[in-house]
Amino acid sequence: MSDPQARYVFENPSPEASAIPGIHHVTLAGSRHGQRRLSVWQQVLQPGAATPPHCHDCEEVVLCTAGRGELHIDGRSSHTFGADSTLRLPPEVVHQIVNVGDEPLRFVAVFSETPVAAYLPDGEAIDLPWHS
Amino acid sequence: MSDPQARYVFENPSPEASAIPGIHHVTLAGSRHGQRRLSVWQQVLQPGAATPPHCHDCEEVVLCTAGRGELHIDGRSSHTFGADSTLRLPPEVVHQIVNVGDEPLRFVAVFSETPVAAYLPDGEAIDLPWHS
Repeated sequence: MSDPQARYVFENPSPEASAIPGIHHVTLAGSRHGQRRLSVWQQVLQPGAATPPHCHDCEEVVLCTAGRGELHIDGRSSHTFGADSTLRLPPEVVHQIVNVGDEPLRFVAVFSETPVAAYLPDGEAIDLPWHS
Repeated sequence: MSDPQARYVFENPSPEASAIPGIHHVTLAGSRHGQRRLSVWQQVLQPGAATPPHCHDCEEVVLCTAGRGELHIDGRSSHTFGADSTLRLPPEVVHQIVNVGDEPLRFVAVFSETPVAAYLPDGEAIDLPWHS
């Protein structure tokens, strides 16, 4: 049933600079919006910027919309990608996204939990600098 | 742990015409790709095209990337939206998306289950014409 007072449509705020150098972030859907099972983030990585190597205990799907990136898996294999690519990351897989192009790397990341927990490769929890 | 033989990066296939008039669809992530908790679809609605009124028993988040749409809730309220909008649809809310613009309406839809079950407003299950 719908709530007649509820809002369903939201203009996306612009991603904002975060405490991770070169990463702009906005949470488009998450626990702060009432989600119970999904988080959706939009991020922009500046040229040369990278996420830390990390993993989640949930599923993640990344949709790249612009730029040129590299996905590093477990510090071993690397895979380049560009706009109109999808990264499908199962739980527990350690990954890192690097902007290897000259333009901002833009993507949406979708998670099967909210808030999203993230861990360093040694298992230590990351205190994410945004509400997820 | 990662599987050294696994693939993580995929170029997005183009949305293809579906059995629902005016709706092109591609599943970017779903049960056929090994997902257990997430589905991600990309859809294009031609001008004048609409989804049937329907609901899900999972959460849905829609990211509009181009065009001009209208979201109808429970056949009562309607909300217009455009590119760079997010629709946050809780479980069980009956909704319909209509392209009310002159250009194709493009969006990504994310679901907190896979495969995705869809129901008509009377509760009858919809036999979706794509693998979800």
